[in-house]
Amino acid sequence: MPNIDLNNDLPGIIGLLRYRPETGRPLSELAEVLLRGPSTLSRGERELIAAYVSGLNECQFCTSSHAAFAAAQLPEGMSLVTQVRADLDHAQVSAKLMALLRIAAKVQRSGRAVTDADVAAAREAGASDLEIHDAVLIAAAFCMFNRYVDGLGTITPADPEVYAQSADMIVNHGYLAALA
Amino acid sequence: MPNIDLNNDLPGIIGLLRYRPETGRPLSELAEVLLRGPSTLSRGERELIAAYVSGLNECQFCTSSHAAFAAAQLPEGMSLVTQVRADLDHAQVSAKLMALLRIAAKVQRSGRAVTDADVAAAREAGASDLEIHDAVLIAAAFCMFNRYVDGLGTITPADPEVYAQSADMIVNHGYLAALA
Repeated sequence: MPNIDLNNDLPGIIGLLRYRPETGRPLSELAEVLLRGPSTLSRGERELIAAYVSGLNECQFCTSSHAAFAAAQLPEGMSLVTQVRADLDHAQVSAKLMALLRIAAKVQRSGRAVTDADVAAAREAGASDLEIHDAVLIAAAFCMFNRYVDGLGTITPADPEVYAQSADMIVNHGYLAALA
Repeated sequence: MPNIDLNNDLPGIIGLLRYRPETGRPLSELAEVLLRGPSTLSRGERELIAAYVSGLNECQFCTSSHAAFAAAQLPEGMSLVTQVRADLDHAQVSAKLMALLRIAAKVQRSGRAVTDADVAAAREAGASDLEIHDAVLIAAAFCMFNRYVDGLGTITPADPEVYAQSADMIVNHGYLAALA
């Protein structure tokens, strides 16, 4: 049960976006640009960063959601998401994505935890400045979304089918469709 | 020095908003609605929550900025900001604002740290559901902004005059003006 009366029984952040559309719109636009807008990082790679950070923050709703969204858009599917979440160091990702996930883990702890060496390692692995920027902002944004969803005690469905259906909606219609 | 080349020498988040306007716009719109939009919490009270959370995250740029913005919009000025940051339990704020600041501190640690008792205490002190929602989202949003600013190693001016000038701009023109 949510801590406040949302006037709807929608799960996780969807209930919050509908409750307060004035904040729901910029939040959805941020997710749309960061996770689905034009980028040299694939949508699957960006959702993987979101799922990984949500896991570190132990936000069950966001982890289940973005794991499903990543799996639906990565050629390797859910097995890669599970691998990254269980043991990043041995996950079968490119050197560039590995370096960006390591930066994301630092950001999850604190922005001040990111070192020049972390950024140099990402650049050496082929990451552009914009890719480093976006990885930092995705990680930071999920430190917000995770706290927002859990801080208000929103509903977390147990049925995996709910997240699979959301994945379908996000992949086909994007984050702004959740507002409608 | 920022970790990436921003193509500008603007301090803190301003340099980031200009570097990537596609994300800069929804981020600025979120700040504008949350901190300055119609609300039963005053602009000063909302900036105080932002400054308090930024202090807990030890983000110097955001703390100096939002402390200045709060001071400029609170009748008690900077003395109240300093009090809240130094010793919340004995700060001269209303019971409602005290309860919301306590929730904000929980959110800063983790969304999962907020208890039903925290929310009940806020409600008992007169907070509405919308005020509780906004306090949680302000705290969560600054867990993003703080990580974004520090994770990319942006410039933090030492001169207090810089923050006083920013306060003037924010109070008179708002957060969307920083994009121009």
